[in-house]
Amino acid sequence: MKKQRSGFQKSLDDLLQDILKMGGLVEENIARSIESLARQDLELAEKVFVVEEIIDRMELEIEDTCIRLIATQQPMAKDLRRIGAAFKVITDLERMGDYAVDIAKVTKRIGDEPLIKPLIDLPRMAGLVQKMVKESLDAYVREDVQMAEGIGKADDEVDSLHKQVFRELLVLMMENPRTINQATHLLFVSRSLERIADHATNIAERVIYLVSGKRVELND
Amino acid sequence: MKKQRSGFQKSLDDLLQDILKMGGLVEENIARSIESLARQDLELAEKVFVVEEIIDRMELEIEDTCIRLIATQQPMAKDLRRIGAAFKVITDLERMGDYAVDIAKVTKRIGDEPLIKPLIDLPRMAGLVQKMVKESLDAYVREDVQMAEGIGKADDEVDSLHKQVFRELLVLMMENPRTINQATHLLFVSRSLERIADHATNIAERVIYLVSGKRVELND
Repeated sequence: MKKQRSGFQKSLDDLLQDILKMGGLVEENIARSIESLARQDLELAEKVFVVEEIIDRMELEIEDTCIRLIATQQPMAKDLRRIGAAFKVITDLERMGDYAVDIAKVTKRIGDEPLIKPLIDLPRMAGLVQKMVKESLDAYVREDVQMAEGIGKADDEVDSLHKQVFRELLVLMMENPRTINQATHLLFVSRSLERIADHATNIAERVIYLVSGKRVELND
Repeated sequence: MKKQRSGFQKSLDDLLQDILKMGGLVEENIARSIESLARQDLELAEKVFVVEEIIDRMELEIEDTCIRLIATQQPMAKDLRRIGAAFKVITDLERMGDYAVDIAKVTKRIGDEPLIKPLIDLPRMAGLVQKMVKESLDAYVREDVQMAEGIGKADDEVDSLHKQVFRELLVLMMENPRTINQATHLLFVSRSLERIADHATNIAERVIYLVSGKRVELND
């Protein structure tokens, strides 16, 4: 019995390692997508699409692993909840990856037309968001509730940056209608980043549920 | 053994009924959100937020049921995959619900200021999207691959409507900068509908995987 249990523990550790690896790719791809936009680097944008395929494949593999683990190891209550959490965390990561792809698509759409303004707030927002992704995964792997709770604050910060970017772009469009096309794309980028932050918050909430059994809402 | 199996079958049927019920609420809330926007009915928009809370609660309850089912019934391979599918389907439904809330938020944002144009394409898009949600759930419950494959075509239609709405709104903004504020909100509504369609497509892909074990991409 003891031995089987520790075999399961090892499988669970492997699963977490895979999720961390997937999360690392997602983090990188978020950074890459925003960098491609700020530098108008179309080649870098292409790289985002390539990595996205790896991320999608990893999600499916991890999902299969979860199912196999349940089927072959028949884990007990807490471990079942751990696998349930894994299932949900990879869904959040995959959605984040989709948003990075959305951003890279904007890079391609804008192409080499001059940027209507230097991108400062969006990369700053992206930096915050990446940090949230990283910390939510750290909190998840360590099952650290305090760390997870911190994610809520960061999310508020991202939300207020998003609102600021939104207002600025609206003003820009009204002052100069020629900026409208590009500005609407940048609005979507800001929204994508805000959504990635929401998914990191989902992961943090999931950590709290996993450890305490309590359902909380970290963002308002 | 036989008896236990049929007990499990009953639990699985109950689970599917719950998911259908959740899906019904999501469908209704999508319709309600667009109606609130087209009619500028703030009270109806408030109703969307109320129903969203029920949807969120249902997701958590169904999730717990899935975990409990696995723990107590130790299902075999195919049934495990069914529960895995249920887990994912409710995540998609919950995300759709979030988008309905986003649309209702736009209703509140625009309030009673005159609409920059009568809403025709957005409600049409919403009609298509609702149908996709309904059919993806039907395909899921019946494990009907052919029906699931049909969802891909509907998704293409929604995508092209989204592009059309996008272009029209851009032109409107350029012609009349005073429409910019409202038009950007309507852009997001169009995007939200397009995203709901993506989630219905996810469910359809999941059905195909559940039945055939094949991972397919129904949208391009």
